Amino acid sequence: MSVSFRDIQQAAERIKPYIHHTPVLTNESLNRQVGVQVFLKCENLQKVGAFKFRGACNAVYSLSDEEAAHGVCTHSSGNHAQALALAAKMRGIPAYIVMPSNAPLVKKNAVAGYGGQITFCEPTLEARESTLDRVRLDTGANVVHPYNDERVIAGQGTAVLELLEDVPDLDVIIAPVGGGGLLSGTSIAATETKKGIRVIAGEPEMADDAFRSVKAGKIIPSTNPKSMADGLLSSLGQINFPIIQDRVEQIVTVSETGITEAMKFIWERAKIIIEPSAAVAVGVLWEKKIDLSGLKVGVILSGGNVDLEKLPWQP
Amino acid sequence: MSVSFRDIQQAAERIKPYIHHTPVLTNESLNRQVGVQVFLKCENLQKVGAFKFRGACNAVYSLSDEEAAHGVCTHSSGNHAQALALAAKMRGIPAYIVMPSNAPLVKKNAVAGYGGQITFCEPTLEARESTLDRVRLDTGANVVHPYNDERVIAGQGTAVLELLEDVPDLDVIIAPVGGGGLLSGTSIAATETKKGIRVIAGEPEMADDAFRSVKAGKIIPSTNPKSMADGLLSSLGQINFPIIQDRVEQIVTVSETGITEAMKFIWERAKIIIEPSAAVAVGVLWEKKIDLSGLKVGVILSGGNVDLEKLPWQP
Repeated sequence: MSVSFRDIQQAAERIKPYIHHTPVLTNESLNRQVGVQVFLKCENLQKVGAFKFRGACNAVYSLSDEEAAHGVCTHSSGNHAQALALAAKMRGIPAYIVMPSNAPLVKKNAVAGYGGQITFCEPTLEARESTLDRVRLDTGANVVHPYNDERVIAGQGTAVLELLEDVPDLDVIIAPVGGGGLLSGTSIAATETKKGIRVIAGEPEMADDAFRSVKAGKIIPSTNPKSMADGLLSSLGQINFPIIQDRVEQIVTVSETGITEAMKFIWERAKIIIEPSAAVAVGVLWEKKIDLSGLKVGVILSGGNVDLEKLPWQP
Repeated sequence: MSVSFRDIQQAAERIKPYIHHTPVLTNESLNRQVGVQVFLKCENLQKVGAFKFRGACNAVYSLSDEEAAHGVCTHSSGNHAQALALAAKMRGIPAYIVMPSNAPLVKKNAVAGYGGQITFCEPTLEARESTLDRVRLDTGANVVHPYNDERVIAGQGTAVLELLEDVPDLDVIIAPVGGGGLLSGTSIAATETKKGIRVIAGEPEMADDAFRSVKAGKIIPSTNPKSMADGLLSSLGQINFPIIQDRVEQIVTVSETGITEAMKFIWERAKIIIEPSAAVAVGVLWEKKIDLSGLKVGVILSGGNVDLEKLPWQP
């Protein structure tokens, strides 16, 4: 079972009352700098500061009342944890979040602030999975994976539906890729909405497992990646990978310097806060490794959650 | 001669092709924090990163072709200089900008980047005025004052027209006050669009000349103000003051700590970059010196031009 265009359209209807229809910004200095006409889809201005709220919301509101009564659960220390906690809170159901005990305090507080019930575990994948399993058995909660989940993929695809509604004549869409939830949903929604549109992914050079997976024709796990783009360190999901193989034109890798420069340029010129993972998508244009000159390019700015005390361009 | 509502409506028509209709953002954590329903009018996302572009654009496009051929001129080292340079560039006419020789390099570069022709002078008001006079006589350029100018006031008033078009049922509008260009335009546009709407100004405690002027019933010049809100250090203009006396309910002063806290909260939660002068308007709500609880409040975020290497919450 995969995800259909109809699933994404239904997701859009379902989550509409709960999400922000985020603005699309343009910036002439950016256009001049990269030589294309850029349309920034500002999912950093989405609730919880990331597109992740779309997928979480779609999963939560897809449940029957009976299922929902048991709540939802996941393991995550990132934006997905906050997104699921808020979506559950809005529906009035519990969210059980498994987090590694060494997760930053700011992330624990954010999840707790949205009403998520946290269970801490050892910081290993095995511990996270076995702890999540126990939570699920204890509570009967519905597991919502951050990206390897059809409901989540359909939800993430709604961002580009909005973008193409606001700017129908785009030639290219660029999205970042980590586990592949945003990219797979985006690629279905974009190519089904507009025949011939090109979908390109940005990935950190220092965490280029998706790039290598597509080359190899099979999922190559991400091992010990070092990029500052901490939202893009996961391995591709089993559901996400074939969709990406099928619908994404290419994956372009971006250096850490490119990520920092693109991030700072967007802050300085567009006056919005984007996180390094979002800057990776801009970085594809910034580093000019592919020629898109003169085209109309939609870029999905995936999120804006950054520690303001510690910025990548500061010593 | 003052500014009529009709002038503002005409300005809106005139500048529409050149400006951004900026988005209005809402943020639930901000609402909870300050106890009112806030609508952020994002003029930090305006061209050149500030509302100043509206007034400059209206002045430039108000000129006849014959007048325009001689160009425009002003003395300013702030957002107005960039705004006037860009508006003139768009019309294809010269902009002559008088700047003090000690203006920060980043500001000189920004004006030059928009094609402004800079004349440097000693950093005194006398030198700036006499230099501007000479430039005007040499070139025949039309002087566009940053705020004490009817065309500029009418242009600045268009931001709140857009805001009330997007969110018609606001109870209160808050804008920052420096020279009074934004506040006077805003107060005319708001009170003429919606009878009974309350217009409140935010001003730094450390640069509270407008607050004292209204109390005294006459303009009290700003002397050596020390606030970090560097866009709000000017004295009120002769044209602006009576409009403010007539239409603004009250001026609320905001501490430097309040400015920093409000600024950081907006960056962290709303994911947009605002400058200290914009944070002053948020600071009115943040410091809760007046009771607006439960009301719908529009806040004009005046600009987003900040040195990213040096943030007020960093040591």
